[in-house]
Amino acid sequence: MATRVLTPQSEDFPRWYQDVIARAELAENGPVRGTMVIRPAGYAIWERIQAELDARIKEAGVENAYFPLLLPQSYLSREAEHVEGFSPELAVVTHAGGKELEEPVVVRPTSETIIGEYMSKWVNSYRDLPLLLNQWSNVVRWELRPRVFLRTSEFLWQEGHTAHRTQQEAAAFAEKIHREVYEDFMVNVLAVPVVRGRKTKAERFAGAVNTLTLEAMMRDGKALQMATSHELGQNFARAFNISYLSDAGQQEHAWTTSWGSSTRMIGALIMSHGDDDGLRIPPRLAPVHALVMIVKEGEGVREAAEALVEGLRRGGMRAKLDDRVDTAFGRRAVDAELKGIPLRFELGPRDLADGKVTMVRRIMGGKAEVSLDQAVELAAEALIVDHQALYDEAEVRLDLRTEDVENLEDAVAASQNGLARIPWAKLGVEGEKQLAQSSVTVRCLIREDGEFPTTDDDPDAIAVVGRAY
Amino acid sequence: MATRVLTPQSEDFPRWYQDVIARAELAENGPVRGTMVIRPAGYAIWERIQAELDARIKEAGVENAYFPLLLPQSYLSREAEHVEGFSPELAVVTHAGGKELEEPVVVRPTSETIIGEYMSKWVNSYRDLPLLLNQWSNVVRWELRPRVFLRTSEFLWQEGHTAHRTQQEAAAFAEKIHREVYEDFMVNVLAVPVVRGRKTKAERFAGAVNTLTLEAMMRDGKALQMATSHELGQNFARAFNISYLSDAGQQEHAWTTSWGSSTRMIGALIMSHGDDDGLRIPPRLAPVHALVMIVKEGEGVREAAEALVEGLRRGGMRAKLDDRVDTAFGRRAVDAELKGIPLRFELGPRDLADGKVTMVRRIMGGKAEVSLDQAVELAAEALIVDHQALYDEAEVRLDLRTEDVENLEDAVAASQNGLARIPWAKLGVEGEKQLAQSSVTVRCLIREDGEFPTTDDDPDAIAVVGRAY
Repeated sequence: MATRVLTPQSEDFPRWYQDVIARAELAENGPVRGTMVIRPAGYAIWERIQAELDARIKEAGVENAYFPLLLPQSYLSREAEHVEGFSPELAVVTHAGGKELEEPVVVRPTSETIIGEYMSKWVNSYRDLPLLLNQWSNVVRWELRPRVFLRTSEFLWQEGHTAHRTQQEAAAFAEKIHREVYEDFMVNVLAVPVVRGRKTKAERFAGAVNTLTLEAMMRDGKALQMATSHELGQNFARAFNISYLSDAGQQEHAWTTSWGSSTRMIGALIMSHGDDDGLRIPPRLAPVHALVMIVKEGEGVREAAEALVEGLRRGGMRAKLDDRVDTAFGRRAVDAELKGIPLRFELGPRDLADGKVTMVRRIMGGKAEVSLDQAVELAAEALIVDHQALYDEAEVRLDLRTEDVENLEDAVAASQNGLARIPWAKLGVEGEKQLAQSSVTVRCLIREDGEFPTTDDDPDAIAVVGRAY
Repeated sequence: MATRVLTPQSEDFPRWYQDVIARAELAENGPVRGTMVIRPAGYAIWERIQAELDARIKEAGVENAYFPLLLPQSYLSREAEHVEGFSPELAVVTHAGGKELEEPVVVRPTSETIIGEYMSKWVNSYRDLPLLLNQWSNVVRWELRPRVFLRTSEFLWQEGHTAHRTQQEAAAFAEKIHREVYEDFMVNVLAVPVVRGRKTKAERFAGAVNTLTLEAMMRDGKALQMATSHELGQNFARAFNISYLSDAGQQEHAWTTSWGSSTRMIGALIMSHGDDDGLRIPPRLAPVHALVMIVKEGEGVREAAEALVEGLRRGGMRAKLDDRVDTAFGRRAVDAELKGIPLRFELGPRDLADGKVTMVRRIMGGKAEVSLDQAVELAAEALIVDHQALYDEAEVRLDLRTEDVENLEDAVAASQNGLARIPWAKLGVEGEKQLAQSSVTVRCLIREDGEFPTTDDDPDAIAVVGRAY
């Protein structure tokens, strides 16, 4: 674009991120420290994310439910690691209904504890298992270094919570969700390639025995944790007494899992796909696939534009008319670029006279006069190509900026540009601690064969190391 | 049913209500006073309610957004009536992130204040109006006499917030939402007839200049407020400085509205349609329209049952297979009745041999052997009839139990059975105060011509009086 509307990414990536969020009207900071207001353009993306994830969660046999926002403070204390991990981030309600409460209540930072309490009521026999629940909700974790979408004191998410008969069943379910819900969504909807791995003990969820993660690389080479699935072992089952009578007549504790993904994914979308002209929204998440713009009024122009919108909709696309001819066309075009709408059709009297329309592609770039008759078909094809193009671009970045190294110094150096892969045997727990001095962390442990390492000291594990959001 | 699983409504209606919620596994009380856990069977109904309302809200041109849960305490104080109305119900966070906060923050009881603050940033010119926003969220209002779904310390709802150029436009929009979103939903989806009216000054929303309401009658004759739409005049626009430059070049305050409906509607569904055997879910909200039950295994039975499920789904119905033949059939049937699934198809070897299946209708009652070939068609017809039947039944109740009276004593007497209609001129503000001694309230003011009274002392207004949840 001729006009510079955003700080270029190469100049100041964090500033570019703030700029694009403001200019595309995605979100703003809230009045209470670290909170955010999600504006309609941002929330529409979240609704599409929810719809896609929710369908996959239900397909996995999980049912939605809703548990209260407010937890008795005593619940958190029942699982020692859990309370230690979350205490510094809690918001505490001490007064309600005009009085001081006898026992303070906390605003949920996550719901393992309260859901554990109810699972213990609902699970009695092996026939009650597996119990597969999910909830869409807001959570509060007090944030000292907030950044919109990435790290906010309140965020929106889904949190799944399941209980199973055996360790194997629980582990298999956590992995199923990780692959069939999260990874499938990231790859096939968000168009973001991910590194699938296991968290080290130091990075694990507070109270888990194993945390699986998906890590993506942003355009500045930094990693972003996209979604995590936790095996909770019997830790919460013991703390909340989730037990069942087995078919052999024994009283056993259940094995539980939890897994979550949040509005942070909107941050990933922005930082993985956005460029110096604004957002580029992957077609499967775009609230508007194609914007049909009337460049200038003229005989039959409005009718033709409306017919094109209608045709695109019949073709299964989300189309919208822009007839704000009072506003300068350039400004409207810049606005569409900023908002990352995948396709624009620009129609004026001259185009119409030729039976043509100008098709502008936001994702791959490029502009072409196409026949009005073929516009719908070309749009459908373009959206398929665009999804793949976004994914491929991100994958090339991930590949090019991931380096295999053999020692800690090289890992730190490579992390300045992207990710480093180093044999876990050569890094180890001590090496992991040293990385912290350079603001670098082990994002996850992976294996060459694509499987998850099954122990904290798997000799085949490779540590993926990088700077992270 | 032979087995008595619920307290009969005639014996103890509140107890019946608690019983059916527990036995149909809709919800439970939460650990913090007045909160609730919504179980999958209840949440599935809420998801259907959300989908139906959300489509209507979007059709009205409103966009979804999300504003923070936590509000600076000072926001509430800016509108005098608003803070007075909500202060006794607030939950206050005084500590967060391990420290005492400098300014306590409150958990939102409703969002007029915070949305007003952001509207003031987004509205500058008349071109920015109308601004039409909605959010789906949880709110907290400390509740001393909680009752699941009806009155809970936390509930889920949608709250719409709009800003307009003129008083007329704002009033027209509040009324449009009231009719095209709420009333249309109640009548055509929830199958509940409603009295559409204006709240008296005493019953108005804190900070509003006019509150429109929809009131329904439950099976015990008590009224339930279903949804409200508020004209907020310029009260919040002044408090938060929502102002715009008019096309005449004048700086003007906007006129705002707000409107909400909540999980309370699940309570209305239960108490309007439920009977001594359990729930009866109106077809358009039923998570499962038809349950296909294998009575007993036998050659070809499972295949036929699965084919019927498939056929029902192809016919646009939500169908589910029940193949739990290890569980006594009677228990499974009672369970389906309790959960209010509109249709059951019971299939066993003998039915199949005759090419038949037993169709059981939960809503109208009745059981018939029908040809397997015709089952899908008959199911589709039955669901249409069932919706109307539920509505008609509720409407007959509303009509029969609404009495026209001419004085306060008769109004109180009639309220013991249902609703009383009394000319507002004969009741007045003083009469309204006296009603409180008998735990009776003016539910709303209506007019014979179906329009809303436009002032607090409309001489044609009729007060609708009753006991209420």
